[in-house]
Amino acid sequence: MSAEITEDALALRPLKALTLGERVIDPQDIPWVPYEGHPGIFVKPLRLNRKTGVWANLTKVVGASQINRHYHVGPVTGYVLEGSWYYAEKDWVARAGMVVWEPPGDIHTLMSNEEGTVTLFILEGALLYVDEHDNVVGHDDVLSHMKLYVDYCASQGLEPVDLDY
Amino acid sequence: MSAEITEDALALRPLKALTLGERVIDPQDIPWVPYEGHPGIFVKPLRLNRKTGVWANLTKVVGASQINRHYHVGPVTGYVLEGSWYYAEKDWVARAGMVVWEPPGDIHTLMSNEEGTVTLFILEGALLYVDEHDNVVGHDDVLSHMKLYVDYCASQGLEPVDLDY
Amino acid sequence: MSAEITEDALALRPLKALTLGERVIDPQDIPWVPYEGHPGIFVKPLRLNRKTGVWANLTKVVGASQINRHYHVGPVTGYVLEGSWYYAEKDWVARAGMVVWEPPGDIHTLMSNEEGTVTLFILEGALLYVDEHDNVVGHDDVLSHMKLYVDYCASQGLEPVDLDY
Amino acid sequence: MSAEITEDALALRPLKALTLGERVIDPQDIPWVPYEGHPGIFVKPLRLNRKTGVWANLTKVVGASQINRHYHVGPVTGYVLEGSWYYAEKDWVARAGMVVWEPPGDIHTLMSNEEGTVTLFILEGALLYVDEHDNVVGHDDVLSHMKLYVDYCASQGLEPVDLDY
Repeated sequence: MSAEITEDALALRPLKALTLGERVIDPQDIPWVPYEGHPGIFVKPLRLNRKTGVWANLTKVVGASQINRHYHVGPVTGYVLEGSWYYAEKDWVARAGMVVWEPPGDIHTLMSNEEGTVTLFILEGALLYVDEHDNVVGHDDVLSHMKLYVDYCASQGLEPVDLDY
Repeated sequence: MSAEITEDALALRPLKALTLGERVIDPQDIPWVPYEGHPGIFVKPLRLNRKTGVWANLTKVVGASQINRHYHVGPVTGYVLEGSWYYAEKDWVARAGMVVWEPPGDIHTLMSNEEGTVTLFILEGALLYVDEHDNVVGHDDVLSHMKLYVDYCASQGLEPVDLDY
Repeated sequence: MSAEITEDALALRPLKALTLGERVIDPQDIPWVPYEGHPGIFVKPLRLNRKTGVWANLTKVVGASQINRHYHVGPVTGYVLEGSWYYAEKDWVARAGMVVWEPPGDIHTLMSNEEGTVTLFILEGALLYVDEHDNVVGHDDVLSHMKLYVDYCASQGLEPVDLDY
Repeated sequence: MSAEITEDALALRPLKALTLGERVIDPQDIPWVPYEGHPGIFVKPLRLNRKTGVWANLTKVVGASQINRHYHVGPVTGYVLEGSWYYAEKDWVARAGMVVWEPPGDIHTLMSNEEGTVTLFILEGALLYVDEHDNVVGHDDVLSHMKLYVDYCASQGLEPVDLDY
């Protein structure tokens, strides 16, 4: 008796024609964009998905600086690649290699010391910047970061990378 | 020749012990909560996930009313169960049975006529209510709707259903 | 003293140019597609997002039938629109109006009785159909349902609606 | 004239009581878990969310090795932290610093050369390992990786970190 070999029992092969292409992003093709209103802070966008509202970037803080106090309307995950940072409102320090996840509703002020930091942030929804009276004075989401990126590229004569994936 | 029967070739069985329980929600156990600042509008929350920021509810509009103009910082999907509604800013009508998906950044004012509507909405992130000068004058997200629901239950002597799934 | 009116303090207006268009889906434009291998069961796809892997459909079960036992590799949410159904493995019945959420890893067999059902299902990831030995004998995900839909439209001379949103 | 200061105009303050706590994960508290069936490959789980099916880990490949050919039923994003890798089926190389996003349906075999790699992977749904006949011979998802992690901790007398966030 000869065994018959089954081929593609779950019918995955025909799906290949419907699969989208992958995306390979080289951050060297993307500039460090000055983060307006935040001296010493730069963002390098890696993803700007206008359908899901998910956005990711490398955030670089040069020396002792801060990202102003803000309220998150969606979750955010940070992977510290270099240096360290902390929140003025919390009692831990995020050092290189560590992962921080913050739920919707978290309010905090990101602080760095002299060593600065480079951190990969993955965000959903928006940041609402709040002043000392807890009034909302600024806003960032996937669209404002796309605008920041596209405008900066235009000012520098750069062609923006398509990050809407 | 006796065929040997393979059992659980992909090793799914041992995963059962790690699988969470399912959730079965009966909307009859949840009140119609008056939507503050919006006469004639009621929400029945069905999901309030504080980790992902995803929230879902039945929104009931009684007669001709409106949900004030707002900016979405995440996507929203609506399934019209009864009646109809439209956006003051668009040229289509969402009727019973139809599905509407709106991307982050969409700004609109939901309007109903005499028949009103009941629509299932699934939202991520937040609504930012904007006035005629496009200044943000209100905010709704998973947490504000949880507060709305819990406070209303307290005022009515009801035990809130756990919707954080 | 004349008050100065602030306009667009959070700078939402310029984002309008970057916002994608909304999608309005009328299920009347989409056929009931026979669900292969499942007599008496039809699906009307409403969303087939090939980037996120999220898919949604109306599932219609005519009379007493079943959707074969399967393992979920992502969460699924069901909103019962008509009739009722239950899982052979559980002790509750999902009736019109109710919401069911199932976590990754849940294994179950959907059963209906004579009244049948129409249920809105929103799925992420895949279903792995399993036989009585818990071996995987079938597979469904966003791509297999796109293929099911596109192939059926071709066989009927219909133009498929773009559901990749 | 005394200006009146508005406090918390959007009513964010009362939401603080409903906000969940953040999570700070130090990978030093998590072992490199040998990836069964894959000599030279280790995973350090960072997130295992049993509700959403999202899982993340650091994947370390020591020297020239491979992660067997598999089909993705959800999207995956990789951030290369050290070294490099490539897919046998594609014509690009993922080097340190680069980002790779793969859509549902992608089939590929991850290959490394002598330098090996450490890559942060964020996954949704499952990997279905396929043999040369495209039959599914293995499976990995959030639950199988939780089992892998918990079992390994038990074998080493370690207390597993709660990664279900």
